[in-house]
Amino acid sequence: MEHLKAKIRTIPDFPKPGIMFRDITTLLKDGEGLRESIDVLAKRYQDQQVDLIAGIESRGFIVGAALATQMGIGFVPVRKPNRLPGETIGIDYELEYGNDRLEIHVDAIPQGSRVLMVDDLIATGGTMNAACHLVENVGGEVVECAFIIELPDLGGRKVLSNYPVFSIVEFEGD
Amino acid sequence: MEHLKAKIRTIPDFPKPGIMFRDITTLLKDGEGLRESIDVLAKRYQDQQVDLIAGIESRGFIVGAALATQMGIGFVPVRKPNRLPGETIGIDYELEYGNDRLEIHVDAIPQGSRVLMVDDLIATGGTMNAACHLVENVGGEVVECAFIIELPDLGGRKVLSNYPVFSIVEFEGD
Repeated sequence: MEHLKAKIRTIPDFPKPGIMFRDITTLLKDGEGLRESIDVLAKRYQDQQVDLIAGIESRGFIVGAALATQMGIGFVPVRKPNRLPGETIGIDYELEYGNDRLEIHVDAIPQGSRVLMVDDLIATGGTMNAACHLVENVGGEVVECAFIIELPDLGGRKVLSNYPVFSIVEFEGD
Repeated sequence: MEHLKAKIRTIPDFPKPGIMFRDITTLLKDGEGLRESIDVLAKRYQDQQVDLIAGIESRGFIVGAALATQMGIGFVPVRKPNRLPGETIGIDYELEYGNDRLEIHVDAIPQGSRVLMVDDLIATGGTMNAACHLVENVGGEVVECAFIIELPDLGGRKVLSNYPVFSIVEFEGD
């Protein structure tokens, strides 16, 4: 997948000095690159009896909704606080500095549904781990956690050790 | 499109008393409803020489990215402030209470590209109008503004009078 990796731009010192930000927008604006990325995921999951795709706000919406539409299954947003209009449950989780929170509609997922979790990038894995717990709390079963980009040096797979993890491209040394 | 409209849930008094919130999440989690919604848009635009799709954060990412992938063209995010890592330009615009701001990468759109603007819902049209100005400011030409849901009583088409507007379903009386 080196040709897809080559479409991802690196921006140094964003959002703060010392961080090499892997910028997926240059892949997304490339029609062939976007379609091929989604195709890789659709082929991987087409025979895994996935019922729903859950995507994490905001960039996970891009990858998750495109994949759900291509696979002909539904999409469930996992959102930042106070954005979902119906009854929700939430989960607080720790970031490197401070805390954050995700929410999901309590009726988003029929009991026992097989749910594929999607985000654009896995770094420490904390956000995705929180999202998986939310999906389980409302009755879903996590099939796998799928990403376009993985930063393996940040140890996200250890945090997500309860779940299978798949990524399309890796950036080592981050 | 009454069968698609029937999949959209209405939640009263969100985000504040008196608002009837049209909740697209019940359409999105319905695999057939999601796919048909995107198909309606893809068929409308397939012969209109669209080069790129721009989607507005966050729910516009869902509709826009799914449509771009299905059409085999690129997707450009229009984002809230300080989210895009590269060089951006921004635009401030007025909401009913207070102001908001959108940003786009200055190099997001090749000069002269025909850009389809996408969001989930048109209410007053202020957010989409700001997004159109941003896309024009970085060299794009707006083909049309496309939405799943329109609230026609809020006058969004007047605010967007410089652009063609299309929506799949309408909720009158809002």
